[in-house]
Amino acid sequence: MTLESFFQQVRPSIETALDGALPSEDRSPPVLHQAMRYSVFAGGKRLRPALCLAGFQAFDPEWRSALPVAASIEMVHTYSLIHDDLPAMDDDDYRRGRPSCHKRFGEATAILAGDALLTLAFETVAGAGGLAPERLLGAARMLAASAGTVDGMIGGQVLDIQATASGIDGAALESIHRAKTGALLAASVSIGAYLAAADTARLEDVTRFGRSIGLAFQIVDDMLDETVPVEALGKTPGKDREQGKATYPAVHGMEASRRMVERLTADAMEHVRPLGSAGALLADFARHLERRAR
Amino acid sequence: MTLESFFQQVRPSIETALDGALPSEDRSPPVLHQAMRYSVFAGGKRLRPALCLAGFQAFDPEWRSALPVAASIEMVHTYSLIHDDLPAMDDDDYRRGRPSCHKRFGEATAILAGDALLTLAFETVAGAGGLAPERLLGAARMLAASAGTVDGMIGGQVLDIQATASGIDGAALESIHRAKTGALLAASVSIGAYLAAADTARLEDVTRFGRSIGLAFQIVDDMLDETVPVEALGKTPGKDREQGKATYPAVHGMEASRRMVERLTADAMEHVRPLGSAGALLADFARHLERRAR
Repeated sequence: MTLESFFQQVRPSIETALDGALPSEDRSPPVLHQAMRYSVFAGGKRLRPALCLAGFQAFDPEWRSALPVAASIEMVHTYSLIHDDLPAMDDDDYRRGRPSCHKRFGEATAILAGDALLTLAFETVAGAGGLAPERLLGAARMLAASAGTVDGMIGGQVLDIQATASGIDGAALESIHRAKTGALLAASVSIGAYLAAADTARLEDVTRFGRSIGLAFQIVDDMLDETVPVEALGKTPGKDREQGKATYPAVHGMEASRRMVERLTADAMEHVRPLGSAGALLADFARHLERRAR
Repeated sequence: MTLESFFQQVRPSIETALDGALPSEDRSPPVLHQAMRYSVFAGGKRLRPALCLAGFQAFDPEWRSALPVAASIEMVHTYSLIHDDLPAMDDDDYRRGRPSCHKRFGEATAILAGDALLTLAFETVAGAGGLAPERLLGAARMLAASAGTVDGMIGGQVLDIQATASGIDGAALESIHRAKTGALLAASVSIGAYLAAADTARLEDVTRFGRSIGLAFQIVDDMLDETVPVEALGKTPGKDREQGKATYPAVHGMEASRRMVERLTADAMEHVRPLGSAGALLADFARHLERRAR
């Protein structure tokens, strides 16, 4: 299967799973459910749930049983975007070409909509059914750890806030990027493989794959912030540099950043080579993410 | 067993469970783990975890196996206090007689510390062990639903922000209080009973008990805000009235509020009468919570 046909197959199902999991806009309190849906259905590419399903299908063709968990990963991702955009955090007025959640619904509602998506994510994993309870508990643990404070998303966000481009070395920057963005991306594909009962060695391959594409993804994000105009980026461009943020282009330069992405992508593809043809889709995924940088 | 001796027995274990679940203050990023611990170890009475353990021990004496889940409920409670105190929400500078989390650590860290406690709560439930995986999944679902948007804590908080004392009737006020505070308190005791494998009829008794004490608890909170000086309350008193908040004393008056608490407490005790001597501790709990109002 090509990656394009995989996307065409899974994306509508991911949308349906998200739509089914989120309370409708007329449920009380309406403004809260509107805010949650505003941010979840903002045209995101669903990369994380698609990665989860790709990790699953490498070991089990019945990827539909992983849909609730895949949707929950997108909820965690969306909550993190809402909270990151808050005035006390990155203070971003735009997200995906529209006013960010707090600009549209106010700060209190945005904070609570983020909290609600995080809460609903775990409710959705716990209520998934169709998979062994121990597997769902394991998926919840992996998701929480990747979103958490120790080498996870929240920890990375705190380190990122503290860091500035002038006062950071390459190793510290790598740790931040691996935690802030890499952990949830890596967990997405690992959770998929774990839910499909991949054995320990193969799960380790997939986890290494996830770590490589996770770091590459954030480096590409840094590069896009430098080069892409606002219409295409959907958020305020050049803001990282303006705010003195610690980014790969700021610390290593654009050309070295590009080479690192190439190397990480090659590493990722190498990690899934032992899976044979079952890993081909994941390898294509790595190449697809690299291509964003061009 | 008296309630006092039960508290003396379980409280040190709850502290130990929380201490073991929270990363130490020197783990990176230190400021985040300091903020989490600052708010969790602020002298809270641990009513919710104690209720969870009391619900458990009504059906199974080995309450220690419910400790991780009990601790996770306290994490959810603490996250909600941190976020409620934020400038965009209730804007409270004090909590339990000390600067609130955002006054002490800044707004960004407080938002993230709250997010982190919510995340860690579900990681802790999922990693509890010692109980059947299906039970732990059920507990995660109950916890998430009680903290969520539909008749849960976050939904109640949104309705509470929108409501004012002058523009609300008794039924709407009751709904807000049941969701904002009652749902998590009720879930605490229900989760305990569920983890201890209470049968459906007894679980229903315990759930009704929880709903009654949950509403009573918030009415008492409203009353204390009117009457107790700052030193004893540990937060800014009279603030509800000042902000025109929808409270029971504002809508019904103090005397009627007191009678409602009495009736709800009597109802709660009635609901656990079918449990016989196993329900005695829960009945004592209801009386204990009522006494706060005097």
